[in-house]
Amino acid sequence: MRYLFILSLITGMVYSQVFAQNSARNYGISLGVLTPGEWNAITDVPGVAVGQVTLKEGENIRTGVTAVLPHQLNLFQQKVPAAVFVGNGFGKLVGTTQIQELGNLESPIILTNTLSVAAGMEGILDHMLFLEGNENVGSLNAVVGETNDGYLNDIRGRHVKPDDVREAIKIAKGGPVIEGNVGAGTGTVCFGFKGGIGTSSRKLPESLGGFTVGVLVQSNFGGVLQIGGQPVGKILGQYSYKNQLESADGSCMIVVATDAPVDHRNLERIARRAIMGLARTGGIASNGSGDYVLAFSTTKEHLLTSGSTATLANDQVSPLFLAAIEATEEAIINSLFAAEDMKGKNGRIVKALPKEKVSALFRE
Amino acid sequence: MRYLFILSLITGMVYSQVFAQNSARNYGISLGVLTPGEWNAITDVPGVAVGQVTLKEGENIRTGVTAVLPHQLNLFQQKVPAAVFVGNGFGKLVGTTQIQELGNLESPIILTNTLSVAAGMEGILDHMLFLEGNENVGSLNAVVGETNDGYLNDIRGRHVKPDDVREAIKIAKGGPVIEGNVGAGTGTVCFGFKGGIGTSSRKLPESLGGFTVGVLVQSNFGGVLQIGGQPVGKILGQYSYKNQLESADGSCMIVVATDAPVDHRNLERIARRAIMGLARTGGIASNGSGDYVLAFSTTKEHLLTSGSTATLANDQVSPLFLAAIEATEEAIINSLFAAEDMKGKNGRIVKALPKEKVSALFRE
Amino acid sequence: MRYLFILSLITGMVYSQVFAQNSARNYGISLGVLTPGEWNAITDVPGVAVGQVTLKEGENIRTGVTAVLPHQLNLFQQKVPAAVFVGNGFGKLVGTTQIQELGNLESPIILTNTLSVAAGMEGILDHMLFLEGNENVGSLNAVVGETNDGYLNDIRGRHVKPDDVREAIKIAKGGPVIEGNVGAGTGTVCFGFKGGIGTSSRKLPESLGGFTVGVLVQSNFGGVLQIGGQPVGKILGQYSYKNQLESADGSCMIVVATDAPVDHRNLERIARRAIMGLARTGGIASNGSGDYVLAFSTTKEHLLTSGSTATLANDQVSPLFLAAIEATEEAIINSLFAAEDMKGKNGRIVKALPKEKVSALFRE
Amino acid sequence: MRYLFILSLITGMVYSQVFAQNSARNYGISLGVLTPGEWNAITDVPGVAVGQVTLKEGENIRTGVTAVLPHQLNLFQQKVPAAVFVGNGFGKLVGTTQIQELGNLESPIILTNTLSVAAGMEGILDHMLFLEGNENVGSLNAVVGETNDGYLNDIRGRHVKPDDVREAIKIAKGGPVIEGNVGAGTGTVCFGFKGGIGTSSRKLPESLGGFTVGVLVQSNFGGVLQIGGQPVGKILGQYSYKNQLESADGSCMIVVATDAPVDHRNLERIARRAIMGLARTGGIASNGSGDYVLAFSTTKEHLLTSGSTATLANDQVSPLFLAAIEATEEAIINSLFAAEDMKGKNGRIVKALPKEKVSALFRE
Repeated sequence: MRYLFILSLITGMVYSQVFAQNSARNYGISLGVLTPGEWNAITDVPGVAVGQVTLKEGENIRTGVTAVLPHQLNLFQQKVPAAVFVGNGFGKLVGTTQIQELGNLESPIILTNTLSVAAGMEGILDHMLFLEGNENVGSLNAVVGETNDGYLNDIRGRHVKPDDVREAIKIAKGGPVIEGNVGAGTGTVCFGFKGGIGTSSRKLPESLGGFTVGVLVQSNFGGVLQIGGQPVGKILGQYSYKNQLESADGSCMIVVATDAPVDHRNLERIARRAIMGLARTGGIASNGSGDYVLAFSTTKEHLLTSGSTATLANDQVSPLFLAAIEATEEAIINSLFAAEDMKGKNGRIVKALPKEKVSALFRE
Repeated sequence: MRYLFILSLITGMVYSQVFAQNSARNYGISLGVLTPGEWNAITDVPGVAVGQVTLKEGENIRTGVTAVLPHQLNLFQQKVPAAVFVGNGFGKLVGTTQIQELGNLESPIILTNTLSVAAGMEGILDHMLFLEGNENVGSLNAVVGETNDGYLNDIRGRHVKPDDVREAIKIAKGGPVIEGNVGAGTGTVCFGFKGGIGTSSRKLPESLGGFTVGVLVQSNFGGVLQIGGQPVGKILGQYSYKNQLESADGSCMIVVATDAPVDHRNLERIARRAIMGLARTGGIASNGSGDYVLAFSTTKEHLLTSGSTATLANDQVSPLFLAAIEATEEAIINSLFAAEDMKGKNGRIVKALPKEKVSALFRE
Repeated sequence: MRYLFILSLITGMVYSQVFAQNSARNYGISLGVLTPGEWNAITDVPGVAVGQVTLKEGENIRTGVTAVLPHQLNLFQQKVPAAVFVGNGFGKLVGTTQIQELGNLESPIILTNTLSVAAGMEGILDHMLFLEGNENVGSLNAVVGETNDGYLNDIRGRHVKPDDVREAIKIAKGGPVIEGNVGAGTGTVCFGFKGGIGTSSRKLPESLGGFTVGVLVQSNFGGVLQIGGQPVGKILGQYSYKNQLESADGSCMIVVATDAPVDHRNLERIARRAIMGLARTGGIASNGSGDYVLAFSTTKEHLLTSGSTATLANDQVSPLFLAAIEATEEAIINSLFAAEDMKGKNGRIVKALPKEKVSALFRE
Repeated sequence: MRYLFILSLITGMVYSQVFAQNSARNYGISLGVLTPGEWNAITDVPGVAVGQVTLKEGENIRTGVTAVLPHQLNLFQQKVPAAVFVGNGFGKLVGTTQIQELGNLESPIILTNTLSVAAGMEGILDHMLFLEGNENVGSLNAVVGETNDGYLNDIRGRHVKPDDVREAIKIAKGGPVIEGNVGAGTGTVCFGFKGGIGTSSRKLPESLGGFTVGVLVQSNFGGVLQIGGQPVGKILGQYSYKNQLESADGSCMIVVATDAPVDHRNLERIARRAIMGLARTGGIASNGSGDYVLAFSTTKEHLLTSGSTATLANDQVSPLFLAAIEATEEAIINSLFAAEDMKGKNGRIVKALPKEKVSALFRE
């Protein structure tokens, strides 16, 4: 992985052809009918930046922070249109009601573990309150999502600190995104395999508008895994409710970015489709799973705080729906392909997806 | 088909082994990890009845009515807990706000075409207002769903009459359900193939509660068809947005029944999962698609109008989620396998899914 | 009343000074801090038209139709941004899910009685399907609201016919609106007094944007009447739950129009405030009350179907909120002042508000 | 105030007759038609406890914490049914999506200032994670509401610490509740006067079920004040939008408790009515106001986590609606009567409501 990454700094073209180092596409598995963007990542949406801080210490700390920034200006002053869709609300995502009411996002998006949401908020405030131009800000809608990584991580230790969050925001950048056991995905589990951070994108053909949709996920849920239609979980004999012992609980945080000029209402519709992408991987949004989607648009025209300008009409958004579904599906699958075996709390081990075995199914 | 149906009257066991005559299972395609009920139909939920009236006249009339009854008593007097989930609200389903507010259903569920919703309401009133015990009823929440069958049907002719609706209610019964080009599915199109009525069910093992979840769909939408993980649409080269000409619009009405004692809130959660089942077939809930789910519980204890009694706790409902996903997925696929070529309005022809070709994909 | 109405045709100025003939303002009761528009009616929003058909026949028929048109062009081709807010969903308003999904209105708004909603839909289709330009329309989202006028009206007789609905649409016009025992308000009851149709408006000062907000209500609900802060119900000793016999059930349909350029999201926020106006009259949105608000904007720029243009920013809409609250409050009070004693079904009599007695409270 | 409080410890009866020391009723102003409970406070609902920590230091710190506990057992193990209604979502209340999804509350409710929400969450975790029985809890839905007290308080200083929150939880108790400039209400402003914490209750007569509804508010919003129908703001010439300078922004957090056995769905309906109580005080839920209601039921039967038991039927809840409206209205008015002049940040002064002047209006 590191090798490829260094290569990419020298020859972006090479990298962009092979996509992320351990993605499903590297294993010959291609999902959907639309084409990914350059990095097959949320950062294919111009301006979007990702920063990650991984906390892997001793035997018990396996957690971290992943920050997604719609742009790198002052977000409070340059809000972006946004929407939230709650697939299953067993979760602690903060910031939802204001996004739904006002239709915009004024904070970086932080992903972390369930008991570190407050640290996420403090970190956002530490960063945002002191930006130039925010000297009088007394109200700021921090947005922090989470999943429970307590199987591998000492979650009750609340090891994520506000400074980790500030760091993730500060180092955020465009270009390739590291996936798998990183940032907020360091300790997560998905379909009984090691999950983590995953990302993917779709670029619509010009005839459908030419817009890009990018998705980043923190995968930590269960169900009956299927990849590109192959009932992988069934074939491998590992799935939820096979017997009573295996639960499908967990969560999935999904961030959707687009440069299409869509308003809050159509962003909410796009967000809803991301859960349909999750469904295509075999996820079932079980009772204990906090499955949330946060979608935003980076369109320049929308950065103006004084009213939106021309947006896509309803009948122009369906291709964006398909793009959101495909990119979400592939981001989740990528999180499984990029993740590696992880040993964590109390010596517990979660194995990665048997990638060769799975890719062999597709070669048959 | 008729042959098998007669057989079933004599030897229910035989029939129940072969399921519905033209279902995907008859073609060797088995979806999901849970087991269907006796008829692989919504009627596997005890008490649920289905009645269908097909209007196929001349060249241009290709429409009808499908009625689903939670039970065959006076529904206004014996309401059942219910919930609606709007997957994509480009549709005219009536009765939603009262179901969401009061948490119950007091009317048969009628499915028909878009411009016949008023006829559906009148038919329900004609039936319900004159039932014994309803002499003083001056307010009744009729529930009518619809999809637009205007490609094959002269929809502007509004050929469905209130009497057709009453008839569908009157002839409703349990047991096997006819699928495909029947009732409200007579003129519908799905993934570019002939769609129609489809149904399926799942019976949970006793260890997960032993409850049954049944689904009935009126399929009339688009996307990129996938069956049991096989990217059938991609392989056949027929899918939405392949080029600009093919739209994914249309609609899908989904009715979910269960005998699990779940209240309105958990029924809404189950209804949400049905859209995840639709997602597994490759549906994308495009802008022009009215994708709605209506879920109800038949539990005896809930028939009491004066307050609900013991219901399942949140952490007991996940298996019902999986069942709803699988049954919805299979009901949609069944609607494609049961449908046959249809010639309709202005001589237009919609071909059925090439079933042999598709089932060959699964034998490989 | 007729006298004043004729006067108004001759000398609009005079009429506009005295407002609607029997409004609360004619009794010296002035509500709120903002100023009404010329007619103190929903028609003060330029382009909005109202048409009413009153069915008062024999002893038992006391019902009718009230149509509100955002403009008098082809609404299907020139949709307007719109939103629905459900105050209490015990009602049968049809058309809600599409308005919420697509953010617009493509049909006249029809108000009638509970069991005539289907007739309302048919009447809308009879009108809209045959307008020039709609020759190929096969899907139209008819919007029909209702309240239960069954105390004074033979509601089970379903006396409203599609032709009555078409007539109401056809005769709709701007200018003064007749209130009280008319159209859909012919048989309604409010706070135990005769209710009916009421309307009011507010015109913001130029410093707050200069926009107009107009409201029309069909009042048919209960609670503890208060007018301009005076606890009238308490003083008169007539209110819900005084003893167990008096119910607060019923419904209130509220239509809010504005010429402010606001999108779906902010229209929904405005719609929510209308229920706050209802609250100021002492309404409690009891279990059996179907309290719905439909809000739309007539702004020319929004008539374009291909995407919206510049809209008000969030921080510009609060004055519209206040206007919606005040106009709704006053529209309800006006419905009580305009209504007169009504004798109806089975000889039942509902008395009008004792207006002199009430206005005396304000002179003290 | 202190005098009366001591008295109350000796002679509860006396205290209970005079209600809270500085309530509207002490000024001869009686609102609504239902009767308050013993303390005219949220603590009239058996088991409910309130704890408050006031931070008033130097010139600039004017803030605090108010904790409301449904009961004093381990809330995570003994969850209570609950619901949230968002009147206007410009706010940072955390915990909403899980309450809506699962229908219950598992944390004390903390109210504080906008930038101290994270401290509120940390304080809840510090308390809850270490309760006996919670040793393995790795996911807990902390509920923290807030309003912006930045006019009188150095809100950017984030002076509330997790220990203040723990303290408020620890000292929570039943009985009389101190109102006005206390806890989370220390620095708030309402209708341009000093706001703060207010509380009130209603006890239904046995014929309507005999249940109690209690409300506690943190008042910090604007509009056109009216008290018991008297247009006080208009008479005093102080209201929002009188000219452009006065904004109605701010927020109102409303907590509603009841001992009626109502489930999530009917609790949400009750929560909606609280905003109608706010409307009766002249509040308009302006764009910048975060107006939230959190309602819970303490019914013993519901404390069982394994499914709810018998609950009230829909048609039994209307009296609870009226009680919630009246108690919310009076709690807000009480917050104004209990509050006193406050000098705070940068020497700013906010005057209390001129109580004698206002009560004189009622004596006339």
